[in-house]
This record gives sequence, C-alpha cells and structure tokens, in this order.
Amino acid sequence: MRPPSRPILGLIQSISVEGPLLGRLPIGRFQGCSSNASRRFSVASKQLPEIRKANAKSWRRHSYVEAQYFSSSVRRKAPNTSAIGGIATSPKRSNTSQLLGVLFGASALAFVGSSLISNVDDQHDNNNPIGLIGSVDIVDENDVRKIRLVEVPEHDRNAPSKWVVRGTSVYDITDFVEQHPGGEVILRACGGTIDPYWKIFSIHQKPEVYDILNQFYIGDIDERDLNESGHVDWNALGSKVDAVDDPFKYEPERDPSLIFRTEKPCNAETPGDLLTDFLTPLKLFFVRNHLWVPQTHESPKSITIELSDGEEKTYTLEDLKVKFKEHTITVTLQCSGNRRSHMSKAVPGPTSGLQWDVGAIGTADFSGVRLRDVLKDAGYCVDGDCPAPKQCDSQEADQHVHFTSPADTYAVSIPLQTAINPQADVLLAWDMNGEPINRDHGGPLRAIVPGVTAARSVKWLGKVNISCDESQSQWQKRDYKCFGPNIKQSQVRGEDWDEAESIQETPVQSAITKIVKAEGNSQTSVNGFAFSGGGRRIVRVDVSADGGKTWKQADLHNDKAKGTRRWAWTLWTIDWPIEELKPGQKAEFVVKAVDDAYNTQPQSFDDTWNFRGLCANAWMRVAI
Amino acid sequence: MRPPSRPILGLIQSISVEGPLLGRLPIGRFQGCSSNASRRFSVASKQLPEIRKANAKSWRRHSYVEAQYFSSSVRRKAPNTSAIGGIATSPKRSNTSQLLGVLFGASALAFVGSSLISNVDDQHDNNNPIGLIGSVDIVDENDVRKIRLVEVPEHDRNAPSKWVVRGTSVYDITDFVEQHPGGEVILRACGGTIDPYWKIFSIHQKPEVYDILNQFYIGDIDERDLNESGHVDWNALGSKVDAVDDPFKYEPERDPSLIFRTEKPCNAETPGDLLTDFLTPLKLFFVRNHLWVPQTHESPKSITIELSDGEEKTYTLEDLKVKFKEHTITVTLQCSGNRRSHMSKAVPGPTSGLQWDVGAIGTADFSGVRLRDVLKDAGYCVDGDCPAPKQCDSQEADQHVHFTSPADTYAVSIPLQTAINPQADVLLAWDMNGEPINRDHGGPLRAIVPGVTAARSVKWLGKVNISCDESQSQWQKRDYKCFGPNIKQSQVRGEDWDEAESIQETPVQSAITKIVKAEGNSQTSVNGFAFSGGGRRIVRVDVSADGGKTWKQADLHNDKAKGTRRWAWTLWTIDWPIEELKPGQKAEFVVKAVDDAYNTQPQSFDDTWNFRGLCANAWMRVAI
Repeated sequence: MRPPSRPILGLIQSISVEGPLLGRLPIGRFQGCSSNASRRFSVASKQLPEIRKANAKSWRRHSYVEAQYFSSSVRRKAPNTSAIGGIATSPKRSNTSQLLGVLFGASALAFVGSSLISNVDDQHDNNNPIGLIGSVDIVDENDVRKIRLVEVPEHDRNAPSKWVVRGTSVYDITDFVEQHPGGEVILRACGGTIDPYWKIFSIHQKPEVYDILNQFYIGDIDERDLNESGHVDWNALGSKVDAVDDPFKYEPERDPSLIFRTEKPCNAETPGDLLTDFLTPLKLFFVRNHLWVPQTHESPKSITIELSDGEEKTYTLEDLKVKFKEHTITVTLQCSGNRRSHMSKAVPGPTSGLQWDVGAIGTADFSGVRLRDVLKDAGYCVDGDCPAPKQCDSQEADQHVHFTSPADTYAVSIPLQTAINPQADVLLAWDMNGEPINRDHGGPLRAIVPGVTAARSVKWLGKVNISCDESQSQWQKRDYKCFGPNIKQSQVRGEDWDEAESIQETPVQSAITKIVKAEGNSQTSVNGFAFSGGGRRIVRVDVSADGGKTWKQADLHNDKAKGTRRWAWTLWTIDWPIEELKPGQKAEFVVKAVDDAYNTQPQSFDDTWNFRGLCANAWMRVAI
Repeated sequence: MRPPSRPILGLIQSISVEGPLLGRLPIGRFQGCSSNASRRFSVASKQLPEIRKANAKSWRRHSYVEAQYFSSSVRRKAPNTSAIGGIATSPKRSNTSQLLGVLFGASALAFVGSSLISNVDDQHDNNNPIGLIGSVDIVDENDVRKIRLVEVPEHDRNAPSKWVVRGTSVYDITDFVEQHPGGEVILRACGGTIDPYWKIFSIHQKPEVYDILNQFYIGDIDERDLNESGHVDWNALGSKVDAVDDPFKYEPERDPSLIFRTEKPCNAETPGDLLTDFLTPLKLFFVRNHLWVPQTHESPKSITIELSDGEEKTYTLEDLKVKFKEHTITVTLQCSGNRRSHMSKAVPGPTSGLQWDVGAIGTADFSGVRLRDVLKDAGYCVDGDCPAPKQCDSQEADQHVHFTSPADTYAVSIPLQTAINPQADVLLAWDMNGEPINRDHGGPLRAIVPGVTAARSVKWLGKVNISCDESQSQWQKRDYKCFGPNIKQSQVRGEDWDEAESIQETPVQSAITKIVKAEGNSQTSVNGFAFSGGGRRIVRVDVSADGGKTWKQADLHNDKAKGTRRWAWTLWTIDWPIEELKPGQKAEFVVKAVDDAYNTQPQSFDDTWNFRGLCANAWMRVAI
C-alpha cells in the first residue's frame, strides 16, 4: 500500500531563448525545482514538442530539473528573451505534480521574476500569446515503491512481468523486451541485476539508454536489503551476479585505424580518408555487430532452407560449392545509420543509435551462389511461369524470405520478390574480395542482398525460410524504420511500428571523404563516394564550394562493378582552383548525387529527420 | 563582301535589384541602348550566369534592350539598390559591340547616373567589388547579310546546310535538326518558309522558340525579293507555301475540361481538382502528343519483333490475344515534364517545354500481353538461365529494346533488363480501363512500361527491336535528360547529350490537387497524389500548413493496384482544423512524399533545376 499522495509545489525558475536567430535556430533552456525531492521525471509539452533533453538532480527534499529545448515554435521570437512562469499542482493526478512554465515574448520582459499561477487548467485554456511551454511530471519521493529483494527473482524471463535491477532501482521491462535493439538477449538479465551485462555490453553506457530504462522504473530496493555501502546485497539471495561470462572474450583482432563507436559489441567505421579504394580492403571494412562474434565452432556449418509448407532441405557449404554455379558480384554494404551523426545536428535534435560519421560503408566482391538457385533446388518455384505460390492463412501469398543467425540471435527478412528476382543477385556468399569471409564479416556463410540496407545481409547465416509474413524480430519490426520528422520515439505505439515500412532499398547517398590540397596549392582536390540502393546507378554528382549556391559536376571514376545491376558505389573527384575558393559565411564544400531514377538527396536533415537517425542522406557539407 | 565594321557605342542605362529578399530571391533588370541599331543580341555574363530573358526592340539607328535576371549572386545585397555602368566597344571583335554593365552595391548608390567606361578588358580584370554583370553582343545592322531568295531552295533537306525562312529572316538550322524536339519533321520546311508549319504546329508560337531560332540567324532576304507589303515574294519561286496540308485535321474530339497547353500537337492536362479518382476517367486522361494522331487506317495493324540478329516475327493484334496470356496492370503514366511550370519559377529561371501544372499524370488499368512473353515466342531468350546473349560489335551485349511508331515519327528505347524482367510487367496493351485504347492514347496497340516516364510507353506501336545501343532518336538522345542546375542549354555539346542518362524510372513525386473547406468551415481537406517510379510504393506523405516548418502525415488511400510491383500512384487526404491554419508569411500547404526506398523530394527547385524542366519533383507549395 502506498501512502496517500501529497500535493507538490514547484516552480519553473527560468526560461530562456538563446543563440542567434540567423543560420541556427534558437536553443532554449528551462530550469525549475519542486518543493519535494523526486527521482524520475519526464518532460512533455503540447506547445513545445521539440523538447529533447532533460536532466534532474535530486536531493532529499528538493529536486532540480533542467531541460533543453530546440523549438521551431519560438523561431520567430526575438533572441535572448527570457521569462518566468509559475507552477502548480494539478488536482487531477494523485502522485505527480506538474511543473509548468509560461514563455512570454520580448514585450513581456517586465514579467521576469517569479509568479505563481494557481490554476493549471485555466492556463491550458487561455489565449496566452506565446503559451505554455513545458510541463514536467515529478514523482514525489514519498510515493516511491519499496521492493524487497526476494521479489526480484520471481520476475525472471519466464514470468508475466519481467524485472531488472540497475544499482538499487527496479524496472519492469516487460513492455520493452520486444523493442530492445539487441533482441531477446535482454531476457538473460530478468529477475536479477543488469549491471554486469551493461559492463560487458558497453553500448548501454550512455544517457540515451539510461533515459529509456527510466521510463520503466517502478521502485527502489528496500533499504533493509542494502549492505553497508548502500549497494544491493545480492549474496543474500545466493546469486553470483558477477559471474556473467563475457561472450566478447573471443572477438577477432581488428585494425586499430578503424574508428570504434562501441567496443562490445564491436561497431567500428572506416575513417573517411581511408575510403579511397573502389574495393575496400578487408581490414578497413566497417564492422557492425549487434552482439558478439560467434566462435568458429559456434557458426553454422550448413544452411537449412525451409519452405512455407514446412519442408526443409539442408546444404553444407561444400554442397553449395559443388551443386550450384558460383557468381561474383560487387556490392556496397552500408549501415542504415551511416551519417547518423550528421542528422543528429539537425533542428529536431539528436537521434538514437551509433553516431556514425561517413564510414559505415564499404564495397567488396562477394562470391557465392544465387539464393534463387538454391530455393529452386529446394523445391520452390522461382520463375515467372510458376503456378501462383501457396496461399497462406492470411489470404496473402508467400511474400518474405527470412534469414536467421545461429541460436536466433539475429533474424530479419527481405521481400520474396527480391529473393527470387533473377536481376536482384541475392547471394549466399562465402568469399569477400577473394578470401573466405572472416568471422567479423559473417563467415563462413553470409546472405548478401545487394542494393538493400546492410542489416538484411545476415552474417553467420544458418537458416533461410519462406513466409507470408515479415520476420517478427526486433530488427525487422521495431527498428530500421523511418518515421516523420514530427514524430518522437515516445509517441510511437506498437501499431505505428507495425504499419511503418521496414527499410530495404536505400535512398541516394553521397559523402565527401577526403580533401587534399595539391602541391603548390594551386587547387584543392575533393573526393568522395556516391551510392544508391536498388541497383540504381549514380549518374551525376554535383559539388559546390559556396555552400550550395553554385554547382559543378564531379568526375565520376570509371570503376567496373560485377553484377546484373549497379550494386556498387561510384567514387568521384573534383579539383577546385584555389582562387575560386572564397572565404565567407558559406565557404563550404557541399555534395549531392543523382541516381538513374533521378532521385536526389534532400538539402537539409531538418525535414527527413527521424528519431532513429536512419537513411541520413542530406547534402554533406564540409567547411573549407 | 561585308562592309568593314564600325565601332558601336552603347550604354547600360539602368541596373536594379527588385523585390524583397525574404522568401523570394531578388529579380533584377537591366536596360540599355546602343548608338547603332541592331537586330540580334544575346545576353551572357560570367558573373551573372542566371540571366534568363532578354528582349530587344530595334529602330533604325537605335536599339533598346532589356534583360531580366534572377541572380543568386546578388542574393546577399540589400534590396532596391540600383546602379549604372558604362559600355564600350571591344576592340577585339570586329562586328559586335559589348554592352557592359557594372552593378554597385548600396554603398555605391551615388553612382546612379551614367558613366562611360573606356576600356572593356580593364573592366574584366579589375577587382570591382561586385563586378561586371552583363555583356550584350550587338550586331551592327550594316553587317547584316542580304540573301537573295533563289539561294533558299538550294538549302533544302538534302543540302549540307539547311535553311529556313521565318518572315524575312533566314536561319541556318543544320546544327539544330537533331536537337529539334519534334524530330526530323522539321526537315520538311528546309529550303523554304517555316511560317505555314508554325501556323499549324502552334506549339512554336512562343518566345522561347523564337529565341532558339534566333541563335541560327544568318541574314535577311534581300529587299529586291520583298513585295510591296515588305513580305517575301515566294510566288517568284513558284512555291505554293500556303498549301501545306494540315495533318491535324483528323484529330479526335477531346473533353473541353482539359487544360490545353498546345492545340497542335495536342498537349492537354487534367485540371488538378479533377484528379480525384484512383483510375482516371479516360476522357480526362492527359494527352501528350509530339505530332498529330494517326488516322485509324494509318495505325499499324500488327507488330513486328526484330531480334538483334535481324530476324523478325510479326503478330497481328488477334495473334497476340490468342497466343499469349492476358495481364491487366494498374499503371500511373506521368509526363517527364509534369509540374514543369513550378520548376520554371525557380531561381535559375524558366525551363523550356510545355508548362504543365500538376495534371500531366493519370492512372489506368492496362490490359495486354507481356512483352517478355512475346520476345520469348519470337525466339529471344529472356530467362536468367539462358546463354549470354549474342555479343555486339561494340563488345557490349544486347542492352536495349526499341519501340517505334509508324513511319518512324516517334521512337525511343528502354533497357533490355526492364523488358525481360518478369517483375517489370512491361506490356503490349490494347485495353485501357476496360475499353480498347483510343486513338489519342495510342490504340490499337501501345507499349506500357510501368514505373518509367510515360515517354517510353510508345503509342501506335508498330515495331519492337532489340539492340546493343539506345535508340538514336531525338527523343532518346537529345531530350528527356537532366543536366545540372548550373548548365544552360547553350552550353551543352553533342557529347554532353550522349553522355547524359536518359530518363527511365522517375523520382518520387507528390502534388496537392484539391483543397476543400468542409461544411461549417471547421476544417480544410487537402487532397493529392503521390507516386514513385520503378514500382516503389509510397510509404508516407508529409503535409505542412506552415510552409514546411512543421509536418503531419496524410492518410494514404487504400486503393489496390494490379501488378507485380506498385506501378500506380497513391492518393492521400489530410483534414486540417481551421483553427490551426494561421495566416502569415509562411501560410502555405506543402507536401512531400517518401517511397519505399526512403527517397524523398527535394525541398526546392533551385538545386534540381534543369533547363528542360524535367523530373520536376520539389515540394509542392500552395498558399492558404
């Protein structure tokens, strides 16, 4: 039983709009405190949906909150205005208070100071010229639920509600499991502490992840179960929580010139200025792993094809090599999040995920057999003249082909049309640039789906199956989808995820990778890559040296790529005479590419922004 | 022998920058006169490449020129500044003068008035802070070549240099013939007057066309060959120049609610607010004809398939119906120039071609047989497992499939890959929305290439042939290609045309077609279409009511389309509460769509501008 909630009084202490209005949009900040201490809060505002960051420090009888916002709704206001608003308890909610701020325009600067607004709902309804800018829900510390340690193991992976403990806080992550970017591996921590896992999976050690977990906070471990240092006394349960085996101890060696975004799992990109070869040297090829790399003895030694009627056929690597024609195709693989760090600088704010620069991309010759040929041999009709494929229960025909890694650690699907299209060149590949595919890149056998985001080219491939439905994995259903620039992650419901389109083919992309001053400084050589999904060839690369005001066309390198369509990037170069490079506000090199469907890149990330930072392909800009 | 040229003195009388700097870029204007009369001029400036329009009126001893410019290079200058520059004769050019203007910034307003700059070349070299803005070449009237009428018929279609006469002016169009958007039909006028043809082909009666012709001016008909009214006395040659047969007299009847951009040939679009049906009613379907519509007896009654080794097979329409499986697919056809009029308002200036609004697009169910099946029957190997096709002389394999109208009046090609891909659904079609395809839309037999610009869906199809090379027609080689936003038509050489990519698949597109205030004015319903080439489905439509500052997602209509991929547009609707529609500078509805390769539309036409106004797909904006 919780104690009855008490009203909380609080105050927004200051609200300000900072920064120049020209060029960049203003950044605002508001700070506040409440009369009670609090441990958790969220920041939300109908009037200020762009609020993007909130931090709180709590003391015993006081909480201090600060939120940063980046608001298009204050765009037209004069810079450096600031104002103060009051707060009050909302009588309708029992155990929270709302911190409310009212932003006044420059003409209302006389209001600077502090004022208490007694009725929240009135504020919502009146016609304040600028309006309510923020409400902060604060949980009263007196309401925090105290949980005895013995309750925790009852909420393990098999329980209807699944808990994890971080430090001394308890979280009910039942609703999060299927959204977990790392998949079901999260279940291992349920009913115990997540701390040793996060020590290993260092990708979690950042504020965005803490923020996600905070949404599922339900209470604190009772003080009676803490030891003298204030830590949870897990020994009381007999659990050996520090004995989690580190699955990363058998990771392959990697080239130190890569830029490591996370170590465990390994996510490392190629530095832009090393992306100079048409075929990326294997040691420099970007590494994108969701989990640890399986040891050789853990990787599948054969591949099982399962048709939609459940019939299976298994092939060893040797079977594939003997039975089918070998094909080599030149494929550019690009992470869906490549250039995410550039999108994170857009007006709507940071995006979640690995903050790649330009190097989560690379090109290699992959050799193997066509998936189409193997499906045909396994008894599936892949030709246009086949009878219509078996109808599924949903009245839909077979429509998807799933790729699964061993132990179901990773699974995604591609459209059946792509898999069986003779022009789509989908491979089961064992060689990369003439060498057996190494462990880091998915050997012994990897699906290669050219022209499609690299997340579908599944490593350590063990199983292929045909289905009416898309893969139900986290990586297919709850990730690798782009929402509109107005949509925040917190607004997205399960059905929104279901309805959104999973990324397959990728949009036209280009980047500047290397800028070199020629000898004698007579000209500057600008270099980069351009690439489009779906086998669409790059037909033009436009480069500007004045921020996009005027353009010239770059020279496209004439590298030949193997394959039915153009699955590989096009490298480009343009030499710019030094005397044409004028300093000034817009002294930027800018690149944008055009593919053979005449698709172009968006000018700005502001309007293609999505909270996961996917398909980040706005014009790339580099200051001169 | 021409008389020796005399120096010409002239003056730029005024140069101004007009219009507000916010929202729209400034439009400038300069005017000038020379001491001599002139008949032809061109406007060019290294510093002001965006100059887009020039008109001249000439009198006997005086010429007045006016040019409009739309310059990003004056973008940062204060509005409403104006300045005067001087002109001089360039000593290096014998029969031209250069009218030169110098634009000064606001700080140089004291210069308003007139000043003579004595040395042109010095002006080119000095470091004027803003610079030379325009030079106008003027031909001295004393240098105009006088041509006797008897010379004209010697320059007919068979002569090495081909002339036409318009009014009393003579033009050598030899170099233009292969660029003529209407194809070789222009040869009919060579060696005589073009006037009766232009009377029939009314498409020519506009300034842009006159400007093109002016580039080829070589002289005037000698006064001795003019009659008393000052017209050319063609009777002296015995030619009956008015007796050109009007091939347009058998055109089909058309719905008067169409918007006719030209009458002869007929080019008519659907008014946006009538584009409300998923399947466009036939009588409202846009008409895009390059020439006249063949009469029924002129249309091919059979189709000939010619393989690359010259082998032919001919099928009557009845043969096709009996021998092959019939397929019906739902296809959106869109003219490559749809929305061109929107691109023409961009900073780089007007584009050439029919100035379509949003309605050069429509959707229909087309029925016919797969081209793939017919090619296979004709002996061509279309399956992936075929032996590699015959090698052509150029060491390239068969790569293109040509479609030709009767009497070679129109011919284009598509990639062989598209033609034989079982998923590309290329048809030889005879039915449109359940009726035999009518004459205006290409019946009895039309090629339907879904997902590809409508120019490749050849009407009145008589022949299909396979080749190593693209079609060499005007419409394939010298049109339907996009150059960079920095490229003017006059800069493009033959080899540039050859190297540029012909449009096949089209980029993602969307438009607002209809805005309706609901009863009681509580909300406004915004409607439109979205479409992408290559069978890419529309996955999201973003709509803004504040000029693109904030966005919402439109409801996508759930119309089912027949076909292997999504070849049809997606209609959409969004209802906007009236109270959210705020008047102001940016009170605009804006739409942009996203396709399933997550390609998006460019924000502005300024950076995707191309002189032919093709693939115009920037965000569409409609003032509220």
